[in-house]
Amino acid sequence: MKDPGIGSEKIIRRKRDGELEYQPDDLTVEEPLEIRIGRRNLATTMRTPGHDEELAAGFLVSEGIVRRRDKIDKFSRPMNAIDRENIIAVELAAGVKLRLRSAKRFGTITSSCGICGKNSIAVIRQNFPPIESAPDVRVATETLISLPELLRKHQGDFARTGGIHAAAIFDLNGEPKIVREDIGRHNAVDKVIGRAFLDRLLPLDRHVLLVSGRASFEVMQKALSAGIPIVASVSAPSTLAMNFARESNQTLIGFLRPPSFNVYAHVERAILD
Amino acid sequence: MKDPGIGSEKIIRRKRDGELEYQPDDLTVEEPLEIRIGRRNLATTMRTPGHDEELAAGFLVSEGIVRRRDKIDKFSRPMNAIDRENIIAVELAAGVKLRLRSAKRFGTITSSCGICGKNSIAVIRQNFPPIESAPDVRVATETLISLPELLRKHQGDFARTGGIHAAAIFDLNGEPKIVREDIGRHNAVDKVIGRAFLDRLLPLDRHVLLVSGRASFEVMQKALSAGIPIVASVSAPSTLAMNFARESNQTLIGFLRPPSFNVYAHVERAILD
Repeated sequence: MKDPGIGSEKIIRRKRDGELEYQPDDLTVEEPLEIRIGRRNLATTMRTPGHDEELAAGFLVSEGIVRRRDKIDKFSRPMNAIDRENIIAVELAAGVKLRLRSAKRFGTITSSCGICGKNSIAVIRQNFPPIESAPDVRVATETLISLPELLRKHQGDFARTGGIHAAAIFDLNGEPKIVREDIGRHNAVDKVIGRAFLDRLLPLDRHVLLVSGRASFEVMQKALSAGIPIVASVSAPSTLAMNFARESNQTLIGFLRPPSFNVYAHVERAILD
Repeated sequence: MKDPGIGSEKIIRRKRDGELEYQPDDLTVEEPLEIRIGRRNLATTMRTPGHDEELAAGFLVSEGIVRRRDKIDKFSRPMNAIDRENIIAVELAAGVKLRLRSAKRFGTITSSCGICGKNSIAVIRQNFPPIESAPDVRVATETLISLPELLRKHQGDFARTGGIHAAAIFDLNGEPKIVREDIGRHNAVDKVIGRAFLDRLLPLDRHVLLVSGRASFEVMQKALSAGIPIVASVSAPSTLAMNFARESNQTLIGFLRPPSFNVYAHVERAILD
């Protein structure tokens, strides 16, 4: 079966010895996805095709537009659009109305930017309450440092293209539950959250989110929308991501490069032995 | 002098030998920047503070809103806003009117997503004509493979934070002209283009753009807006970036990891010996 997320093209490669070859190469597919609620256009994001329903669902959840699974009836593709594979419409359940205030703010947001159109971090914090987790929600050092290798094992496309981000949900024992890839790192996070939402698994209050890229503010915000208490990144967090994590009672691990890592916020959920 | 792009915070670090230390660490600052034209809010982007005027100018150029330097009079900060350091207003020259059609489309675009609110790549291609470069606009292998090291030398913040993207303009001899860093890779590109625009250096038709991250569609689009004929990335391009480069007559180099690299489009500008 053809993978919609991978494209193959002939390219010229200069090898380490200086020789040139002209060969097929796998590339990550990037296409726009227009997300609609019914017939109303909400946002367009550059994404890797595949798992579009999850991406749309996760986007609505992480932007605070939809919170309950039963508000969504189904997803559809427009019948007559030229580019119907790049449009997905969320059909709300009968009688469900959009929260108009949210939708209005939402007009200038894309999935690459969780804060666009909003003036301050305080506005967003109203949407998602801080994490309240049980005292036994903790992760051991041994488990933490096992996660990057587990992610790589479940990440099919990266090995081939080298150009795709991944996000994964693990339980507190390091068992991978959902792994998704996308050219946009926020899309990968939306896809895992969307999958969990569609399966009625939210809040993910006994889980860890691992992202392959940096931990930006938006990643922390999306994790908070799904109730995830622990976020780990193989790369650097920003100041805003750290401050947001500290205020939101989220544990933030950065530079998770076994056997090393940094703890930027709420170390009490890490069992450091 | 305090660098506005770097924040220092105490964090817990697990070292390779398993020992823990609690020490100050440098983090990349991430803050929202609201870009206005006069009093009208155009977009908000998460950026690393510093070079905000360049970022705003590059954003307007790469979105096709402003093309000529003399259309911009100056930049200002709002007098009474609480968060005035995170707002920048572009003041147009007397008599200059916004192209309203562009501005309307622009309502749902952020600097992280060059295509948001637009339905197809065809719509964007109307804005920027393909590159027309002279036959002698070529870059040698030796020059190409020298660029990543030159970028690193000029990139102050990355060494400290490990969490910032860079974009650089080089001439065809590999001489670095403009280097900028930002937590958002599109912002770094906007900053270098904005600097060149403010200095009346556009089009950059005898130059190479090097980006530290992946080459997405938006990076290619931004390069095209500045007339840059050669784009090199140390990482992977997407399918759409490659297709856009081929259609726009842009040379696209990926995985530039000396002594290796790949050529994805318009190899005729690379002198491969």
